[in-house]
Amino acid sequence: MNAKIITISREFGSGGRSIGKLVAEQLGYAFYDKALVERIAKESGYAEDFIERRGEDATSKSSFLFNLSRSGGGGFDGMPAITDKLYVIQYNTIKKLAEESPCVIVGRCSDYILRNEPDSLHVFIHADAEFRARRIVEIYGERDNAPLKRVEEKDKKRQVYYKNYTGRIWGMSENFDLCLNSGKIGIEKCAEIIVGLAKK
Amino acid sequence: MNAKIITISREFGSGGRSIGKLVAEQLGYAFYDKALVERIAKESGYAEDFIERRGEDATSKSSFLFNLSRSGGGGFDGMPAITDKLYVIQYNTIKKLAEESPCVIVGRCSDYILRNEPDSLHVFIHADAEFRARRIVEIYGERDNAPLKRVEEKDKKRQVYYKNYTGRIWGMSENFDLCLNSGKIGIEKCAEIIVGLAKK
Repeated sequence: MNAKIITISREFGSGGRSIGKLVAEQLGYAFYDKALVERIAKESGYAEDFIERRGEDATSKSSFLFNLSRSGGGGFDGMPAITDKLYVIQYNTIKKLAEESPCVIVGRCSDYILRNEPDSLHVFIHADAEFRARRIVEIYGERDNAPLKRVEEKDKKRQVYYKNYTGRIWGMSENFDLCLNSGKIGIEKCAEIIVGLAKK
Repeated sequence: MNAKIITISREFGSGGRSIGKLVAEQLGYAFYDKALVERIAKESGYAEDFIERRGEDATSKSSFLFNLSRSGGGGFDGMPAITDKLYVIQYNTIKKLAEESPCVIVGRCSDYILRNEPDSLHVFIHADAEFRARRIVEIYGERDNAPLKRVEEKDKKRQVYYKNYTGRIWGMSENFDLCLNSGKIGIEKCAEIIVGLAKK
């Protein structure tokens, strides 16, 4: 296969970021997670914190918008104008990065944006909510009293954002080459499978 | 992981059956595809041909039923009584087989039926419709003049059947430990990944 572009979409707390980092290290690829936010900040002039909050998740008022975008088929009809603007900047930045050098890109609809690139591998990482709730407490030191609720809210916001800009249902296997349950398979083994496929 | 029960759900024409056979051979596990139909025939008294036609796909009148079952959440409310009866027999047979010996079971909602079994690995195999249309002509010698249409119709019927009896959306990654795009990854490599995980 020899995948030069690897996108990793992931449920919140599933370890997708850690897996992407391992894969990038093992393959010697550029890794765009925090570095992607920095690059988008540079291109757009928006603050990194703003991009973190608005570049991947819908705002919290969106359950109404979610239904709207589901029925409407998605695409620039349910988000505030500034979020639409940020999406376009992210789109262009991700396209540019993918041309620069072999890379692993985490999140921000990169699977959709780069869906037609040759030599690409699109991965989705998921795990059950309990595993993820435990993980955000252990790894990220989340202090929220209700980590399970936090995981579910974050899931919902990512679903809404993704549906709005891609017209796709979040987590459908048909949109990926590989979907892995990190809670069952383990972080290292997930990385090993991806590296094995990328080098094939 | 040491998975003793492997279920393989698959889109029509994706090579899921071939992958399951390779996995069973390499692990020395029992393989239930055609053998599952024979066993269900023995348990139920129904003809194998009837089980082939009615034990996994909705009948063709089902687009109305599909909508019904989608809104109703699934479960014994949209299928003819005889199909419900066959589902129960399949359910019991699959449960029994999983207790007998390590095995690979293909299709028939086995992922859902065995979802809570310890030491199980649930796999979904998919590929784009063009790949599958070519494959059913090449491998199975399908003579249909419109293989793409045949693939799409079969997909729809499996979706309806699956939704009706499991309440789940067909192909959602959250219901599986591993989802693989066989068109991109290749049949042998898919089998290799599954074997590697089962033996972990």
